[in-house]
Amino acid sequence: MSSYCLATYRCYDDTADFNKKAQGIAVGLTVGSWTDLPEARKAQMQQHLGHVVSVDVSEAGEASPESRRYADIRIAYPDVNFSRDLPALLVTVFGKLSMDGKIKLTDLSFSESFLSAFAGPKFGLQGVRELLGVHDRPLLMSIFKSVIGQDLEGLGEQFYAQAAGGVDLIKDDEILFENPLTPIEKRVAVCMEASRRAYDVTGQKLLYATNLTGPTSKLADQARKAIHAGANALLFNVLAYGFDTLCELSADPDISVPIMAHPAMAGAFYPSPEYGISASLLLGKLMRVAGADLVLFPSPYGSVVMPREENLAIKQVLLTENLEQDYLYRHSAAEGPEREPSASANVRAALKTSFPVPSAGIHPGLVPLILRDFGTDVVVNAGGGIHGHPMGAIAGGQAFRQAIGATLDGKPLQEAAQQHPELKAAIEAWGVKS
Amino acid sequence: MSSYCLATYRCYDDTADFNKKAQGIAVGLTVGSWTDLPEARKAQMQQHLGHVVSVDVSEAGEASPESRRYADIRIAYPDVNFSRDLPALLVTVFGKLSMDGKIKLTDLSFSESFLSAFAGPKFGLQGVRELLGVHDRPLLMSIFKSVIGQDLEGLGEQFYAQAAGGVDLIKDDEILFENPLTPIEKRVAVCMEASRRAYDVTGQKLLYATNLTGPTSKLADQARKAIHAGANALLFNVLAYGFDTLCELSADPDISVPIMAHPAMAGAFYPSPEYGISASLLLGKLMRVAGADLVLFPSPYGSVVMPREENLAIKQVLLTENLEQDYLYRHSAAEGPEREPSASANVRAALKTSFPVPSAGIHPGLVPLILRDFGTDVVVNAGGGIHGHPMGAIAGGQAFRQAIGATLDGKPLQEAAQQHPELKAAIEAWGVKS
Repeated sequence: MSSYCLATYRCYDDTADFNKKAQGIAVGLTVGSWTDLPEARKAQMQQHLGHVVSVDVSEAGEASPESRRYADIRIAYPDVNFSRDLPALLVTVFGKLSMDGKIKLTDLSFSESFLSAFAGPKFGLQGVRELLGVHDRPLLMSIFKSVIGQDLEGLGEQFYAQAAGGVDLIKDDEILFENPLTPIEKRVAVCMEASRRAYDVTGQKLLYATNLTGPTSKLADQARKAIHAGANALLFNVLAYGFDTLCELSADPDISVPIMAHPAMAGAFYPSPEYGISASLLLGKLMRVAGADLVLFPSPYGSVVMPREENLAIKQVLLTENLEQDYLYRHSAAEGPEREPSASANVRAALKTSFPVPSAGIHPGLVPLILRDFGTDVVVNAGGGIHGHPMGAIAGGQAFRQAIGATLDGKPLQEAAQQHPELKAAIEAWGVKS
Repeated sequence: MSSYCLATYRCYDDTADFNKKAQGIAVGLTVGSWTDLPEARKAQMQQHLGHVVSVDVSEAGEASPESRRYADIRIAYPDVNFSRDLPALLVTVFGKLSMDGKIKLTDLSFSESFLSAFAGPKFGLQGVRELLGVHDRPLLMSIFKSVIGQDLEGLGEQFYAQAAGGVDLIKDDEILFENPLTPIEKRVAVCMEASRRAYDVTGQKLLYATNLTGPTSKLADQARKAIHAGANALLFNVLAYGFDTLCELSADPDISVPIMAHPAMAGAFYPSPEYGISASLLLGKLMRVAGADLVLFPSPYGSVVMPREENLAIKQVLLTENLEQDYLYRHSAAEGPEREPSASANVRAALKTSFPVPSAGIHPGLVPLILRDFGTDVVVNAGGGIHGHPMGAIAGGQAFRQAIGATLDGKPLQEAAQQHPELKAAIEAWGVKS
């Protein structure tokens, strides 16, 4: 029985015969040539042949008055053609093709067989909530700032100030690499000690995502060292290493802590409409399949912006329980007699969901917007919005917690600010958006 | 003494204050904040601070009548801020920044200290020539076609037909992954046996680049297995795994064969003028620094096109012996009193050069163009131009060798075709371009 993974592309061209182009992709990226093959060979090669699933052309001016002519093309690639790893799938569907004109890889759907090779997030959203013992509200995360050149004492102090304000997670700056001033083991020890001191004040658990860096083959050892030193989460610049490295780290039984995926370098892929890989695939589906427990991405609210609809598309694929709809490709009879329907009626593969972490430019006055867009299952992630609080970082964390509490209670921030001087000061500094 | 790596960006914005943006990058991606720091702290942090080296603004309509407003911004990043690996450098210079507006990373120059951590290509262009015993002409490479679904016997036959025509290198299709029909060890054995048979006819050595695929942590083992089975070169989809994985493979003493870098997925990065990473950096400098002995990239001649000037920029950085000019950044007094000139006057780091392999759509009639653009130090790489030859694949290889010989002799192809029926048939099929 054949099974297929499905790739969706958006292709811009003023004049192309998109149906012909689609056929060219389906044949060229699988068996190479088809019409020239002798009939006996066709029978053998049938199982390796790609298929055009659909070609939806949008003529110039049709999608919007200024829009150019494009097509959304969906191609089914036989699983038998590639091994069960993301480099193989990505090279198959977007290796050579990425260089062939104005074409963007906008989505992937996997066969059950392909997806079953991936364990996905080890903890996932619920696992992270369980580690923290927080189930009824969005989480709050704080980002270290200006840590390059800091010594251990400075890091410890900054950690405490963030932790004591009531944040649930603290992440390293993604540009803090292994260095003599604050090597990972010592950094973890100092920060976890600061975490214990903060716990005495807040009574609240906290995850510290320390930045996992260095040569690819040493990452698992570095992670073990960090965990041995007390690390209870890891930050990882996935795109600098490739999705498969995340897969291997997340599947490693020794790496017994959540992994937070940083989107560093993602802007080299997703922002162009004509080239690259869509944000929802790159920072959504692929991160989840590869095993990220939490995924950072640029929020639509602040300084580093991504359109809101792309944010919501990422959220959708990180949080969906219904893999059937978003992740799985099952070919139906309508797609052609040569493809058989999948034997199993049930989704065997089940991936844990990943925590969405819209980031950059977040201040307490944005909390109502974030919760409107993301609901409760979101990490509110702040850097300057905590460190830059007029009353200091502890007050910064408190202001966010107050904003989250008020929003969950359905209370306007301005009203809640009457009881909370920290929230009041934050609103005076940055305002409220809605 | 401080040393720096230099990143160059092209930034599009109709109204931005590019000098301010450059300052924001230099500070924001290094120490985080500067003007607010107390003086004593500034003294400590000076060595970690990034510097704006230059900001060249091109106003709308200045570069060409339709051109928009942009700036080329160069920032020096202190080496002390990152570890000596490409993920650390790339995340520093284009992690968060990649997501901050219309910005493309167009070049990197390295400090001697940074570059000295990289061994570069193990064989390089001269090493590949020595393995083949060919020093006086461009090399000829052939690409397997339609190998998915082929059995070992079919592969062996196709290999022989390519080899017997006089090609120097044969590469796997980059979408041929580990599979039950043609697993790497058996594939290598069959192809090397076909290579020996062809040698009896041609008297010519040949490198077979077998495709190295699978989970990241198993790649070195796979490579050893392939080499043990007789593989004398490897093909690698670098961008699906990350540059650091190539670094580690090329530095592995057990991997005693040249590595050929395939550009699969490169089109997700380089074609947009506004986003991503330039072709000459992605497929040129970074591939060479990471250790690729040969680098494939889309030619400007054929079906998958890249502008000629970008091809020549790749060639320049793959082939330059003068690292001083293209690779190294040395800060001069003009850049500010706080930076000291490099102590050493000599370039200590020396990287072997990498063979450029412009690919796609190549037929014998293009050989004069290729040699005009690339000179002798190029691999002429053909797929359909060999397999699709009217007289068969052996004649296809022969026609290319005839075209190369004629061009080196300064003889027009049409004239040479009078003596060579294979070249004549190729020209009749595809023409000659000049």
